[in-house]
Amino acid sequence: MSPGPGLFITFEGPEGAGKSTQLARLAERLQAQGRTVTVTREPGGTPLGTRVREVLLDPALAIDPLPEFLLYSASRAQLVSDVIRPALARGEAVLCDRYFDSSLAYQGAGRGLSPDLLRALTREVTGGLSPDLTLLLDLDPATGLGRAAARGQPDRLEQADLAFHERVRAGFLALAQAEPGRFTVLDAARNVEEVAAQVWRAVSSRM
Amino acid sequence: MSPGPGLFITFEGPEGAGKSTQLARLAERLQAQGRTVTVTREPGGTPLGTRVREVLLDPALAIDPLPEFLLYSASRAQLVSDVIRPALARGEAVLCDRYFDSSLAYQGAGRGLSPDLLRALTREVTGGLSPDLTLLLDLDPATGLGRAAARGQPDRLEQADLAFHERVRAGFLALAQAEPGRFTVLDAARNVEEVAAQVWRAVSSRM
Repeated sequence: MSPGPGLFITFEGPEGAGKSTQLARLAERLQAQGRTVTVTREPGGTPLGTRVREVLLDPALAIDPLPEFLLYSASRAQLVSDVIRPALARGEAVLCDRYFDSSLAYQGAGRGLSPDLLRALTREVTGGLSPDLTLLLDLDPATGLGRAAARGQPDRLEQADLAFHERVRAGFLALAQAEPGRFTVLDAARNVEEVAAQVWRAVSSRM
Repeated sequence: MSPGPGLFITFEGPEGAGKSTQLARLAERLQAQGRTVTVTREPGGTPLGTRVREVLLDPALAIDPLPEFLLYSASRAQLVSDVIRPALARGEAVLCDRYFDSSLAYQGAGRGLSPDLLRALTREVTGGLSPDLTLLLDLDPATGLGRAAARGQPDRLEQADLAFHERVRAGFLALAQAEPGRFTVLDAARNVEEVAAQVWRAVSSRM
């Protein structure tokens, strides 16, 4: 639960699932209702996070699973302190494109890092701040990668093989199954309007 | 202990203590004896580490203690895997300008992060690889900062206040006291030749 009267919503899922589109739609709809909305993303969201993002997405860099997780965690720690907690304390709705579930799915299920290590460090990094609602945009990896590729040159993560992305998908679905109260799983193969309607239903039920 | 027949030596101490000078001297002397020497540093030493170093030393960035530690750890993990372990396995002498003791002194004693957290993550990051010998170039912080300032614009860490650097010094000395078998403490206020002679005595006794 968030520490203040705000509402903390995260979007999770693979590249190409439409997270940014749905996040922008939801932000508009919440603003239309008079809510103040902070929109952010991982990695990024702060000057430090933006620099770390450039490093993580650089296709030329060799980065092992553990340092990869540590870089995401560095960005996350700064984002929680500087952006997410202050916005929630002001009573805002915070919409974040990826959060710790991405580390559990990508670096855990995908790269094989120990879930215990990931969870222990994540607790330190977030101070235990969990989203009020996590919208998982589930999509067949082949479809997601096809959509992402249509947008241009693949980044470092998009270059990983299909088996990796299958493990990530299974990881996300297992997280959702373990916390049904926090997660809503949406079929991201549906069209934008249908998914947006489902997002809004899930969010409305929390307000 | 190092995993191979190599020799792993780290240099620790504040900015301005002469670590790079002494490290270069020792490298020459070991090479003159026919040893293959790998010289590296933290943060840095790999393409990833070099990018992380630029971020860490940027005076314009606000970085909290925890993400700071995570960035150093990311650089360290990649350096251990890609540079230090392979060189030790080839039987080389590895000389590293800073290693995990710097995190314990700067982020632990200096910034106040929990030593338990630092040590637990450091074990993961290094796979338990400890130096065979750590040369602590001890120096009064005011002297060290004066020397570093004489070299130009202070970086992000050099800008911290004197009390911080006093805590770091005390932290280094406490580490040395706790592991007298691994550490040799040298008075870095002495001239370069004297310190180099002491470094050589400490190293010779390990070979």
